[in-house]
Order: sequence, then C-alpha cells, then structure tokens
Amino acid sequence: MADSREARANIGVVGLAVMGSNLARNLASRAGNTVAVFNRSPERTRTLVAEHPEAGFVAAETIDEFVASLAKPRTAIIMVQAGAGTDAVIDQLTERFESGDIIVDGGNALFTDTIRREKAVRETGINFVGAGISGGEEGALLGPSIMPGGSAEAYETLGPILASIAAVAEGEPCVTHVGTDGAGHFVKMIHNGIEYADMQLIAEAYDLLHRVGGLTPTEIAEVFTEWNRGELESYLIEITAEVLRQVDAKTGRPFVDIVLDQAGSKGTGVWTVQNALALGVPVSGIAEAVFARSLSSHPEQRAAARELPGPNTTVTIDDVPAFVEAVRQALYASKIVAYSQGFDAIVAGAKEYGWNIDKGEIAKIWRGGCIIRAQFLNRITDAYRADDSLMTLLAAPYFRDAVIRTQAAWRRVVVVAAEAGVPAPAFSSSLSYYDGLRAERLPAALVQGQRDFFGAHTYKRVDAEGTFHTLWSGDRSEIGSAGSSH
Amino acid sequence: MADSREARANIGVVGLAVMGSNLARNLASRAGNTVAVFNRSPERTRTLVAEHPEAGFVAAETIDEFVASLAKPRTAIIMVQAGAGTDAVIDQLTERFESGDIIVDGGNALFTDTIRREKAVRETGINFVGAGISGGEEGALLGPSIMPGGSAEAYETLGPILASIAAVAEGEPCVTHVGTDGAGHFVKMIHNGIEYADMQLIAEAYDLLHRVGGLTPTEIAEVFTEWNRGELESYLIEITAEVLRQVDAKTGRPFVDIVLDQAGSKGTGVWTVQNALALGVPVSGIAEAVFARSLSSHPEQRAAARELPGPNTTVTIDDVPAFVEAVRQALYASKIVAYSQGFDAIVAGAKEYGWNIDKGEIAKIWRGGCIIRAQFLNRITDAYRADDSLMTLLAAPYFRDAVIRTQAAWRRVVVVAAEAGVPAPAFSSSLSYYDGLRAERLPAALVQGQRDFFGAHTYKRVDAEGTFHTLWSGDRSEIGSAGSSH
Repeated sequence: MADSREARANIGVVGLAVMGSNLARNLASRAGNTVAVFNRSPERTRTLVAEHPEAGFVAAETIDEFVASLAKPRTAIIMVQAGAGTDAVIDQLTERFESGDIIVDGGNALFTDTIRREKAVRETGINFVGAGISGGEEGALLGPSIMPGGSAEAYETLGPILASIAAVAEGEPCVTHVGTDGAGHFVKMIHNGIEYADMQLIAEAYDLLHRVGGLTPTEIAEVFTEWNRGELESYLIEITAEVLRQVDAKTGRPFVDIVLDQAGSKGTGVWTVQNALALGVPVSGIAEAVFARSLSSHPEQRAAARELPGPNTTVTIDDVPAFVEAVRQALYASKIVAYSQGFDAIVAGAKEYGWNIDKGEIAKIWRGGCIIRAQFLNRITDAYRADDSLMTLLAAPYFRDAVIRTQAAWRRVVVVAAEAGVPAPAFSSSLSYYDGLRAERLPAALVQGQRDFFGAHTYKRVDAEGTFHTLWSGDRSEIGSAGSSH
Repeated sequence: MADSREARANIGVVGLAVMGSNLARNLASRAGNTVAVFNRSPERTRTLVAEHPEAGFVAAETIDEFVASLAKPRTAIIMVQAGAGTDAVIDQLTERFESGDIIVDGGNALFTDTIRREKAVRETGINFVGAGISGGEEGALLGPSIMPGGSAEAYETLGPILASIAAVAEGEPCVTHVGTDGAGHFVKMIHNGIEYADMQLIAEAYDLLHRVGGLTPTEIAEVFTEWNRGELESYLIEITAEVLRQVDAKTGRPFVDIVLDQAGSKGTGVWTVQNALALGVPVSGIAEAVFARSLSSHPEQRAAARELPGPNTTVTIDDVPAFVEAVRQALYASKIVAYSQGFDAIVAGAKEYGWNIDKGEIAKIWRGGCIIRAQFLNRITDAYRADDSLMTLLAAPYFRDAVIRTQAAWRRVVVVAAEAGVPAPAFSSSLSYYDGLRAERLPAALVQGQRDFFGAHTYKRVDAEGTFHTLWSGDRSEIGSAGSSH
C-alpha cells in the first residue's frame, strides 16, 4: 500500500494498543480529521483497520509509510509504553520529521523525562509536546481530559485537533495549553495524586459506614447515590455506588466482600509525593493514600500483625443517619484539603520549572473526561479567578465556608475512627494538616531549638531579624548572625 | 614540608571543616593512630595543626604530599560537602592510590551516589567505603555512631580504626560493617528519617501538654526530665528538657517562645520518604514529620490560613497528671511505630539492593553517638535476635506488650488533639497505621474495585486463585484470568 502515497492525514497515531486504538478512533470520528495509524507489529494495524472501516484510517506498515502519509506540519501522537519504547519512537520520528512538525507523547511519562525529550527534540526544530491524557480506555474513545505541554507554536496546530476529541464539560473542551515542556505531564501527575487521595477518602468513608455505622454494602451504595446528588457529586462517588451495588454472581455476596483487599498502583501516586517532597509541599493526604495502598499490599506483614489488639471498648452509633451525614461532611472537608495540597504542588512546580500555569483553567479541564471529574472543580476555578495568587484553596471564601460548616463533623468522625480502631489515615491527616496550617504557633519552634542544640543549625527569633545560635555546650548565651554575643 | 616525607600516617582526613577537623582530632587522640590531614585551602590545615599540637598531625599542603604521607594500605576519609566536591576528591585520590588502598566518604552522600562511586572506584582495585557518620560536631570529636558500607576486605583494615573513634555503648563500639557499597549511607539515611519522626512526636507531645494541658515550658521541661528516667530515656528527650528549660536572656521569656516556629531541614528526611515510596514501604510517621517541617516553613501560606476557625468547643483536662501520662504513652506507642516503619525500610532496601544487613546490629550501633541514641534500641536488637525474619517490630512480644499497655491512652490523645484543634499529624498517622496493619479487612478492596471499574486494572478474589475483571460497561459479568467468563 506504500508507493504513490499521498500525504493526506492531518494527524497520526503510533502505538495501537487499547489506548492508542481508542484515541485513533476518537480522532477519526471527528469532522475534519484524517488519521494515519502505525504499530510496530503490522497485524494490529490491519486488525484495527479491518474492524473499523468507518474510521477511514490511513494505515502504514512501516514508519516511512507513516511519515509519508502525514500532511505538513506533520503531527503524530505516540501512544506506546512509557520509557525506552517512547524514546525509540521519538528517535524514529525525529529522523524523518522536519522543522515545524509536531511529535506528541500521549503516554504517562514522568515530567522530567518530558523536559529532557523536549529539549533534545527542540534542537532539531521539531516541536515536542508531552500531553497528559486522562480518562482511561473509555475516555480515550469518547473524550478524555487532555493536558498538553510544549511550545505555543505547536499548540496552534495541535490545539484544535485535541479540542475536537476532548471531553466537553458545560460546553467547553477539556484541554488547554498547560505550559512549556514538562508542564502537561506534571499536571497529569498531580491529577493522579489527587485521584489517589480522593479514592482513599471514599474508601475510609465506606469503611466507617460499614464497620462503625453497621451498614451493608448495598445500603452504602444507596448512601453514595444520595451523596452524588449534592456537593460531592463526582465520577468517583458515582462509580463507588456502582461497585458497592454489584453482587458477585458466583457467591451471591456483595462484590466488594469477595475482592482481595490489596490495592495496586502504577506509580504516579508515588511520583506525586516524591516530587512534592522535593518541592517542599506537604501533600499528606496524597501520601497517606499511597501508603494505604502499599500497606494493603503486604499480606505477610499484615498476617503477622493481625493478632495485635484493638480498643477495649466498642463504639456504638445511636443515630445512624446523623453519623452518615457526619461522614459525608468529613469526606467533603478532607477532599478540599487534598485538592488544596494538590494545587499547592502545581503552584510550586510552576515556580520551580518556570511554567506559567493557569490554575483555574486546570480545574476546568478536569471537569470532564478524567477520573476526578466533578462539579466541585468549578469552585476551584472560581477561587483562582477571584485571586490568582491565592495562598491556599482553604482560604478562598467558598472553601473556608465549607470547612466552617463541616469541621465539627470532621472532628467527630476522626474521633470515632480512633476510638473504634478503624484506620482513617487520610481523614485524620487532612484534619491535622488543617489544624497545622491555621495554627498561630507550631511546635516547629521546639524542633528548631533541638536542631540548634545538637547540630548548631541556628534559629530565627520572633522579635529580631537575623540568625542566632545558643552556645548549648558552653555558657548557653546566644550569639547573633554577625557572631556577636548579646 | 614535603620532600623526604615518610609514609607514616595510618589514616588521613581530607576536608577540615568542623566535622573533618573534629574527626581528625578524635582519630589522633586514640592510641595507635597517626593522622595525616589535608584541606584544599592550606590556611585551614595550618590553623588546625597550630591549635592542636597535641594531635601530632602530619600536615600536607598538596594532595601529593597527603598521599605520600600515608602508610599502605593507604586509608583516607573524605569529609567534604556532599556532591561534586566529593567526586573531585575521589578522582584526585583514585589517580594516586593503588590497589588495596581505601577511600572512605564520611559525608552525607545519597546512597545511590555511593553505589555509583563504589562501582567506579572498585574497577581500579581501590576500595571505596561510604560511611554514614552520625552525631554532629560533638559526635565527630568525642565518638560518633558509624555506619560503613563497602567490601569486607576494606573493613578488615578500616574497622579497627573506626572502632577506635566510635562512641561506646555498654562496652561496645558503635560501628559495624553494614553491607556492601551503599548500605552504610542507606542506613544512615533511614537513621535520619527516624530522627525526624522522633523529633516531631516530641514536638507534638510538647504542644499538647502546652496548649491542652496548660503547662508552661518550664513545667514541661520537668515532665521530659521525668520521662527520661523511664522507657522513653533517650538523647532527644534529654535535650528537649534542656531546650525547654532555657530562658531567653534578652526577654526573660522561655527560649522556645522566642524561637521562630519554622523548622528547617537538610534533605535526608525527604530522601528517606522518597526512597521508602520507591520501595513500597509505608513510612507515614516519617513522612508526616517531614511534611510538618515544610508546612511550618511556609509563613505566607500560614498567614493566609490563620483566620480559619478551630473547634467551637473547648477541651478541658480535669486530671492533668493523667493527661501527662497519657501523652507519654501515646509518644511511646507512636515512637514504636516510627522505628518499626524505619526498620521495614531497611529490610526492603536490603532486599532491593542485595545487602546482607544485620538489623539487630544496626539497632546496637545506634545506642551511642547518634541523635536517636536510646536504651530502647536494645529491645529492637532483642527482637531481631529472637527472630531475624520478623515481619514487623510491632509483632515482637516486647513491643506488642507495650502497645497493648499504651493503646487506650494513645487513642485518647489522638481524640483530644482532634477535638482541641491541635495538630498531631505524627501521633494520628501512627495510630492509623497501627489500625491499618492489624485490620482483618481493609477498604483497599473497594479501591481495587474502583480501579477495575475505570481502568480495567483487574482484581484478585478472596476465594479463588487468578486475576479477574468485571465487564462494568457490559453485562457486568466477571471474566477470569484465562479470559473465560464464569
């Protein structure tokens, strides 16, 4: 099929596993797109083309054919496994593309890899775009949330194509030019970190309703369905109800009871926490969620700890509906903390890596297509629209009011969890974070005093400029930054 | 002073800032050691030699002189700033040393750098030892805890020298051959992570005694002095009493009240959590401690959050002595969790990097010289001596009994903190970890169900082998690992 090939595709997809195939089909289904497709093993290309004649794919059996089939500026989206595979395809395309062409990595790359790749590719005059794509297989087919980084020039060509396939939320496509080089993959990473926290909070709510509230999975499914009608409305709350309502056909038991209680992960939560640590941003809610998954996945250790005792007393809930409502409020307050921490990481990342990221726009493009999609995100957009240099989401009027309204219940639920011996690491750490952030004084003063004692790390004073050290091993007088005793 | 130099020093030190100078003086003060010293700027060498004639230093003004002054096998300890400076000195020594000689990096290197350096140096036949040295300036002078990695061959020569300068705990020098290549710096990193947790727990105890118990810093100093006579006995508890007892000469106020409440850090806590995340080990206590420091160090954000409200009700403590005792028990239980998590990270690191680490021996060499030195560490040694493959310290009889004894108080303190609005992130996360580890069932089952719903990530069943997926978008039947519907 090669010879007198016409360069007629305006977009190409390399890598036709499920995500790539679905994205290609999505592209092909939109007016104006002609989609070239290529896969390392041509069988997969042939299958895709045969199964979807309606797509009008321009199929290529070699990388040269693929490149030849693309109209200029050539634009290709790579959808292969992150890592070495991505580098190999980038090399192949870079050898064949010309200045002004666009290579898009639509995989789940670590943003520092994207920074490195963008720098290398840019030197050839070719544009490189690292684009976070969220929404899983279904999102890829029907409309994902897309977070592209890269140059503004590349986005001029690429933006309309991505807008044509993105999810639509309240009339707007869920895609924006996030920032240069690794900005898109960075924001996608934070999205995933928030997703971990959101899921863990839901899991803790479920556990408390079940173990303390005494509700069955089916009853809790009803609770989540009800919650999905209010301020918690979101895709994750919706599917939680679906999962909890599911009955295992084999045993007749609730599905959730027959699933082994070990949660896996693919590493983006770990990346989020590792990078937030490097940036000095406390993302405790996300960290506790990541730790909860790793704790669950150590069955031998858990078996060794199973005989450890719980509380001597039993917690009894007299008013179950009130408890359900308290858990809902605790979930909402903790969720606000998780998003607040996530956006802090975006702010810090933008500062560190020189990205001009519109936080309000990020919240908007997460309203559709992705896993954390929710009405709630409009309130985050509002908060940053009202004050772009907002120091913390918790201080924005809407969220502050929400926390004022919910904090009594939040505290009560954390108390009940501790008394009942039910682990609620994300609920409790969110509350501790809230109380730490708003504290007039923190015991960090004592920590800094200890550090000065054993390591001469110095300290600052509340009542004077400069840096000080106390001669702990000497006469315990204080010396100032200029070394003068006073 | 160069020409007919005799190779008469059995050990040399490169880098004579405070840590290096003190270590050199420590070495020189022990029988049998003759110490060569070298610093990039010779003024510092001259000053050190002039100020300490008793040390009998062999001073070198050039690296060639330094190398010529060392008897074979030449052994040199590098005490320069971690990073590029260390690499430069290693290169200088590697060019001049011979097969069988020993280069020791005594700085705070990241263990992965040590692995890389050991590999490169080993190819020349020279031994490279990355040694964690803990105890600060005073420890370097009077006896640190030393954690050397590297080859067994190098340790034959180096071990006795290090043993001569190490702290002594109950008659035993605080040094052991930790393992090959990066093992020593890895264990030192975990030591520092545990130190972060220990300090944060003490700070939370102080904060609760102060803000909820109503005690003054001086009264709390007495409490810590008393605690230091019991099972909490440790250097950190001891110096906390000293810091809290200190009165600021300028204002007459308690020292801790005039110190700015922003705790700094030098990065090893961040490294610990980043690496534990990569190893899949939940080190939530250490992570919360690191986050508490970073939270404290964002003054603008804290100012923006200061108006956020706390609880509507006031917590009143009727029986203050009972509350003090409850806080002590909560501190002890949380401390056990922090050490348990730290040792889990050592076990996981040893497995990942192929180190044969004797956990009991590590606890022993931390009994003296280092910041976390404590009697308590003997119990950890006992636990691993009794069962080297112990799955968690919490399951060892001594610690299990301690938790059984303290858990009611631990829960009460976490409850009081939540009700009073006083942040206790490390206390609460430790309790959540405990309740998670011992849980019969975790809501991780729901998380895995969600993951299967939106990402087809599959799940395992409690009642069957294999991997399963539910066709959530289809008829919601289950397909097994072999793809067969059932």
